[in-house]
Formats: sequence, structure tokens, C-alpha cells
Amino acid sequence: MTTLGEIAAVAGARLQGCDAAAVVAGVAPLHSAEPGQISFLTHPRYRSYLATTRATAVILSPEDARDCPAPALVAANPHIAYARAATLFEPAAESRRGIHPTAWVSPTASIADDSWIGPHCAVEAGAVIETGAIVGPGCVIGEQATIGEGSRLVAQVTVCHRVRLGRRVLAQPGVVIGSDGFGLALDRDGRWLRVPQLGSVVIGDDVEIGANTTIDRGALEDTVIEEGVKLDNQIQVAHNVRIGAHSALAGCVGIAGSARIGRHCMIGGGVGIAGHLEIADRVQITGMSLVTQSITQPGIYSSGLAVEPNRLWNKISARLRRLDELFRRLAALERKIGRDGAT
Amino acid sequence: MTTLGEIAAVAGARLQGCDAAAVVAGVAPLHSAEPGQISFLTHPRYRSYLATTRATAVILSPEDARDCPAPALVAANPHIAYARAATLFEPAAESRRGIHPTAWVSPTASIADDSWIGPHCAVEAGAVIETGAIVGPGCVIGEQATIGEGSRLVAQVTVCHRVRLGRRVLAQPGVVIGSDGFGLALDRDGRWLRVPQLGSVVIGDDVEIGANTTIDRGALEDTVIEEGVKLDNQIQVAHNVRIGAHSALAGCVGIAGSARIGRHCMIGGGVGIAGHLEIADRVQITGMSLVTQSITQPGIYSSGLAVEPNRLWNKISARLRRLDELFRRLAALERKIGRDGAT
Amino acid sequence: MTTLGEIAAVAGARLQGCDAAAVVAGVAPLHSAEPGQISFLTHPRYRSYLATTRATAVILSPEDARDCPAPALVAANPHIAYARAATLFEPAAESRRGIHPTAWVSPTASIADDSWIGPHCAVEAGAVIETGAIVGPGCVIGEQATIGEGSRLVAQVTVCHRVRLGRRVLAQPGVVIGSDGFGLALDRDGRWLRVPQLGSVVIGDDVEIGANTTIDRGALEDTVIEEGVKLDNQIQVAHNVRIGAHSALAGCVGIAGSARIGRHCMIGGGVGIAGHLEIADRVQITGMSLVTQSITQPGIYSSGLAVEPNRLWNKISARLRRLDELFRRLAALERKIGRDGAT
Repeated sequence: MTTLGEIAAVAGARLQGCDAAAVVAGVAPLHSAEPGQISFLTHPRYRSYLATTRATAVILSPEDARDCPAPALVAANPHIAYARAATLFEPAAESRRGIHPTAWVSPTASIADDSWIGPHCAVEAGAVIETGAIVGPGCVIGEQATIGEGSRLVAQVTVCHRVRLGRRVLAQPGVVIGSDGFGLALDRDGRWLRVPQLGSVVIGDDVEIGANTTIDRGALEDTVIEEGVKLDNQIQVAHNVRIGAHSALAGCVGIAGSARIGRHCMIGGGVGIAGHLEIADRVQITGMSLVTQSITQPGIYSSGLAVEPNRLWNKISARLRRLDELFRRLAALERKIGRDGAT
Repeated sequence: MTTLGEIAAVAGARLQGCDAAAVVAGVAPLHSAEPGQISFLTHPRYRSYLATTRATAVILSPEDARDCPAPALVAANPHIAYARAATLFEPAAESRRGIHPTAWVSPTASIADDSWIGPHCAVEAGAVIETGAIVGPGCVIGEQATIGEGSRLVAQVTVCHRVRLGRRVLAQPGVVIGSDGFGLALDRDGRWLRVPQLGSVVIGDDVEIGANTTIDRGALEDTVIEEGVKLDNQIQVAHNVRIGAHSALAGCVGIAGSARIGRHCMIGGGVGIAGHLEIADRVQITGMSLVTQSITQPGIYSSGLAVEPNRLWNKISARLRRLDELFRRLAALERKIGRDGAT
Repeated sequence: MTTLGEIAAVAGARLQGCDAAAVVAGVAPLHSAEPGQISFLTHPRYRSYLATTRATAVILSPEDARDCPAPALVAANPHIAYARAATLFEPAAESRRGIHPTAWVSPTASIADDSWIGPHCAVEAGAVIETGAIVGPGCVIGEQATIGEGSRLVAQVTVCHRVRLGRRVLAQPGVVIGSDGFGLALDRDGRWLRVPQLGSVVIGDDVEIGANTTIDRGALEDTVIEEGVKLDNQIQVAHNVRIGAHSALAGCVGIAGSARIGRHCMIGGGVGIAGHLEIADRVQITGMSLVTQSITQPGIYSSGLAVEPNRLWNKISARLRRLDELFRRLAALERKIGRDGAT
């Protein structure tokens, strides 16, 4: 329970047409909000709801606040303001401190007094759990790994030996950090020999990592995720990869070994990035595209194809296989009658 | 050990040319079945095996039963009949009841007497485990989560706070339900601020969830998987998604935030579905397709391209990049000599 | 700490221009190696570093060794030689033997004396852990499963009932082996009935399995991964699949049910392989391709499309949808003016 005044302060918003003392108990979408709940205008197409919403106040932009019939919390960036306000309604993260009696902690691990090691965790020799860190149930922290100040591993996270997590890192359940990279050497009989993976993983401050995402340790040098990077669920980051600060990658992206991704990039869901290439800063790649060469200029890049009815698609895809023939037939016609106008 | 008569009763099949008292110990493919095993005809192309199979009986359709040289269990839907018969040969799911001594259960959790909490589970405050539910080894059940009657979490499943599972839900190892959605707000410096994910996940009755599949909690409202939905392994379901009843999704599908999928849909492996769109009931999408806009009509949709020899593909793909030029050259020719016949 | 002489012996290399007694403490890339470290020449483009590297010795091929200004360890296959040398610098795998006090082991499980069962493991009835096997923290070994001699499950690996792992199998964190396959029968009301998965999984010797990879058990017969296969992270292997010996599959590959992949194949990242088909030996498939039909000849196959700037791609993709029209318009022109030269 909080008040509009407190929300406005946290969100950096100003009140319009409402009472700072009004009590607020939660958050809800515009169309279903009840008195005692706040809401926010996510998209101009929902503006019509402003006339009928029962929300105690609506977070919106100065433009949308003009002529707004509903009580409002006005903010220059309503999305940011909402993100801040919503923290008031989040269930408190575990406030427990100490080591759960079912956890196993090596005597040589270093555990800050005000951190929390949850049920059934295993913390190996020489690991360091810094102040305020929360290690949720069922996590495994390998030898000499570091979990930085205020970081939180939600549950069942595996952090392998020598991996270093910065401050305020958030890892969702099932994350694996520091597994061996896919390093193989082929012998003359066509058999694969494992190449020892001697590097580690370094995760910067404020990085967030989605459920069941995997980040391999480097072969020689470290795999590096710079500060502020946000990784969604089920992303695969291979060995020696570097992801630049403040880039955001959506679910199911796969990044092959030694690729380097710039800062402030946005990578869509299911994108595949080949190994040993570089992607510049501020590159955006749309969903299910494939990157096989370096990208040196900022901009938006794509190679995904959207669905058509299956019969039509089968026809298109059969024609596609004859594209070379088509070019040759066209060239033949051009030779015959002369080509022009086709700059 | 059971008898053909019992199998026929369970499967809803009738006996043809065989003895109801015959003893059956197992199930095997047509070509390798031994006496004492039953088999089933999965596809007409295997009909020739009927003449030589040593199986004690073969489950098949009334059409295939005509002139069938082998003893048969005849059923209108042989696949369904087989599914039912095969349950007789499944190893009994854990019949243990109670709480394993190595499990940790919060004193405020509610555990039905005839449920099972396996080794090294952690069940947090206020969680509810209903009658007959089986929580296998290494699972984590978050605060106030509910595991419905007769549900089974095989092993190492994470169910986050407030998530609600219906009855007879089956979750394979490594499943994560209720992880935070990928909600981010961008500030003026290009940094991402986490948007608290205040919704939850609701899973309907008889839903099955494959290994390492992840289902994020909603941002404001709940992520919803309706009754009877079947999810294969390594599927990613983002926040606020709704999947309609009795839809089946194959492995590695990725669904972006706020997408709504209809009832009785069938989604092929590796399909990507963009956010904030709707897919109608009874839509089928073939493997590795990309859906970027709503689909309003039932039917089959595709955008996957199948492999060609690499040299040919490189040629096709180079030509594809010049497709716009090709259209322009063709139009130029048409202008020059007149266009016709190309309805 | 070791010496160049010992490294040469392990790597099968000969010394050139260096002292067998020189002490070596580690491994580093050519450009950053310090005295006391060895390095290796991974690619001819880095040859220029040979003049300036401070490494105590560099592993390279006989060709690169000619005129090499740096001290060298010369080997016919430098990649294999490096893989062997690097094992000298790997942190020793857990040398602990016995059963950790927090592990739970069924009294009917069979645990070899010199194996290790780590913290919070659960080993179910009838399971067999063979000599020298290492079961890391938080693993679950199902009833009657076998972990072969010298195998290592790094952490949080789930091996379901009756699954059999060969010798020296290495499974990274989060791997699931033996989950139920996606077997479903459709009833007349459009509801899915689960088909019991009565087969198991057999993993050959020297197989390596990457983090969060899932391998389903067979429906009737076993899913089989033959000896020497290397699976990267987040691969999905469906029921009844067989992968031939010494094949290597990169991250995020998905293989549908009953597909058979040959020996010595190389499958790129994100490739999708449809069910019920066969891929011959020595087939290579490049990243993000889709295989929908059997491949009977060795060779390289592709269907991935690489990114273009988004505007250009949108134009190409719109044109692609009109490809059938284009062929028809071209044919019309040809009919009008006669076709030639377009064999």
C-alpha cells in the first residue's frame, strides 16, 4: 500500500487532477484497473480508454496528458516512470540473510554476512559471495567463482569455477555460466579431441540473464558480457564471445564462438550469429535473421522471411530454386532484343 | 504382465484371431516383436510386416484388419488404442507418499497427505501441493505457488512464486515456469531499466511441458496456457502470452511477448512467433517458419526453406539479392516489346 | 608448472629453437603471451605475431615453423598438439572420492568405490555409478540408470530412469537425458492423449553433451547417440533419433523424432532437421538451415539466408512473394519473341 504522492516521487512524475494522498494498492491494465490501482498508457491506440478507466491515476506523457479526462501521473518517459513506480508493488525479494541449514558451503568459501545462501545450494572451495548477494534455492557456485555485491541468482543457477559476476547481476532459473566451450580438434581418423577450455566468464554490473540461458567459458581468454547487457531466455553464448555494454538480446538467440557484438545493440528473437565476426555499436537485427559476416555500420538488418499460406509458399520456394535459370533466361531475352531502362 | 483381454478392455479394441487369455509382457516394433509382446501398425507402409511379425497381437484399424494374417486388436483409432494399451507397460510413477527427509518444506506450505515431495526439493512459504501431486527430486516450488491435483514434476523443475498449475500437469526435467519476463524500458542514455513483472503464470489441466522449456510470468496480467496444451522441449514462452486449449507446439518454438495463439493449433519445430499478434484457432505452422503478423484464418502456413547443395544455394542466395533488379529489368523489357499473357 | 620438454612429449611435438628445461606456467594468445607461457598459431593470418610474441614457445605446423623467428613446438597437427598440451594446465577435475554427506543415494544403487557423488545429488533405486565416474553437485540419477566408467556430469544434470551412459561421457550443467519424447495421439475431439515412452536412451563412449541440451527417450526403441559424438549447448534431440559416431553438432540444433544422422557429420548452429529422415555419413550442413528430406550423398548443404540492410531486405522479400508472377511474365515475353540461349 502506498500513495499517489509517493508513486510520483519514485517515478519522477507530476500529479495532474488527482490527490497525492490517494491510496494505491496495485497496478493493472487501463481497461481492467479498479479504484486503488494505477495504470499506464502504453500505446496511443489505447487513448480511448482514458475516458472510461477507473484507475486512481494513469502514467502518461505530457502530450497524452493534454485534455486527459483521467487523473494522471505525467512523466517525460512514461515507460521509465512506470518501471520505477512498479517496483513499489513487487513482492520483496528474499530478505533472509545467512546460510540455509540445508545448503552446503565449503569451509574455504567466503560468504558476506548479509548475503543469503538458500536451500540445497552448493558453494565450492574458494568461492566468494559478496555483500547483499542472494543465492536462491538449488544453485551451484563453483570453485573460486565470485557473486558480486547485490547480485541475485533466482534458483537452480549454475556458476562454474572461476566465473566472476559483477554487482547487481540478476540470473533467472536454469542459467548456466561457465560451462565448457565447444572446442574440438579433429584428428586424422576423423575423431574429435576436446580442447581444454582454460578461460573463464566475466559478467559486468547490472547484467540480467534469462531462464535457461547458457554462457560458455573462453578457450584461452574470457567470455565477456559488459555492464548493463540484458539477455532474454534460452540464449546460447559460445566461448570467447564479447557482448558490448547495454545491448539487449531477445530469446533464443545463438552466438557462435569469438563473435564480438557492439554496445547498444538490439538483437531480435531467434537470431543466429556466426563465429569470428564483429558487429558494430547500435546495430539492430530483426527476428530469426542470420549474420554470417561482420556488420560495420549501425542500422537495422534482416533476413527473416514471414509465413505465407503453405501452398503459395511451396510454389515460391520451388521457383526460388530456379532463380538462376530465370536470370539466364532474362539475360537471353535482353541479348535478343536489347536491354534498356533497367538501371 | 497382463493379458490380451485386459489390453483390449483398456484400449477399447476388439480381438481378432487371438486368445484373450494370452499373456503379454511388453511392447515392441512390428519387425522385432517377440511372442509375449504386442505391437501396432503405425503406417500403411509397414503392412508387409504383418505377414511375418511374431507379436502376440497387433493393434490396427478395421481397414488394416481385413485379411490381416496376424492376430489383431482392432480399434477405430489405433494410435489412441495403442497409447492406452501402452500405459499398462509404463513403469509405475513414484508411488511414494510423504516428504523425503532431504527435502526442505516451509512450515507454512500446505502439502496434501498423499502427495510426494522428493529428495532435495525446496517448497517455499505458502506453497500448496494438492492431493496426489508428485514433486520429483531437486524441484523448487516458490512462495504461494500451487501444484494441482495429480500433477507431476519429474525432476529439477522450478515453479516460481504465485504460479498456479492445474490438475494432471506433467513437467519434464529442467522446466522453468514463472521466471521474469523480458520487460525493459530504455532511458535517455540508452540504458535499460528492468520493468517489474507483476503478473504470474496460470497452467490449465492436462498440460504437458517438455524438458528445459521456459514460461515467463506476465508483466501485469498472467501468462496463460489453457487446458490440454502440449509443449515439447526447449520452447520459450514470453510474458503475457496466451496459448489456446489443445494446441501442440514442437521443440524449440519461440513465442514473443503478448502473442495470442488459438485453440487446436499445431506449431512445428523451431517456429518463431513475433509479439503482440493473434493466431486463429486450428492454424498449423510448418517447421522453422516466422510469423510476424496476425493469422486470422485456419490453414497451414509456412516460410521455411529446405537445404540445397551449398554451391547451388550460394548461387540462389546471390541471385535473391538481385531480385529487385530482376523485376526492373523484366519491366523494362515489357515496356519495350509490350506485355501480355501474364495474368 | 611444467617444462617445454614435458609439453613436447604430451603434445607429440618437437622443439625448435628452445630449451626443453624451460618452465611453463600457462597458455595465452600469441599477442598477449608472457615469458613462461606457451601459445599456438591458430590461423596463418596471425603469422606476423611470431616476430614479436614473448611466448616461451609457440605450437605450429612444419610449414609455419620454417623461418619462424620464435621458439617453436612443431607438430603435424598443431590443433591436436595444442589440445593435448593444454590438458596440462586444466584445473584437476574433482579428485574427491566417495559420497558427499548431503547426497541422497538409494540403498539399492551401486556406487563404485572410487567414484564421486557430489552435494545434493539424488541417486535412485538400482542406479549404477561405475568406477571413476564423477557426479557433480545437484545431479539426479534415475532408477536403474547407468553412469559409465570415468564419465563426468558437471552439475545439475538429470539422467532419467534406465538411461545408459557409456565410458568417459562428459555432460555439462543442465543437461537432461531421458525425458519423455513428444508422443501424442489425437482423439476425435481434437484432444491429445499422451503416448507412453517405453524406450530409453543409450549414449556411447566419449560422447560430450553441452549445457542445457535435452535428449528424449525413445517411444518403443532407444534413442541412440553413438561413440565420439559431440553435442554443443541447447541442442534438442527428439525420441528415436540416432546420431552416428563422431558427428559434431553446434549449438541450438533441433532434431525431430526418428531422424537418423550419419557418422562424421558436421551440423551447424541452429539447424532444424525434420523427423523420419536419414542423413548420410560425412554430410555437413551450414548454420540455420532446414532439412526436410533425406540426404543420401556426402557434401555440404545449406538453406540459410544472411542479413541485408532492413530496407533492402523488405524489398527483396516483397519481390520474393511475387516470384511466381515473375516467372509467368517472363514466359509470356518468351512466347512473344521466342526464347533462346537460356539452356
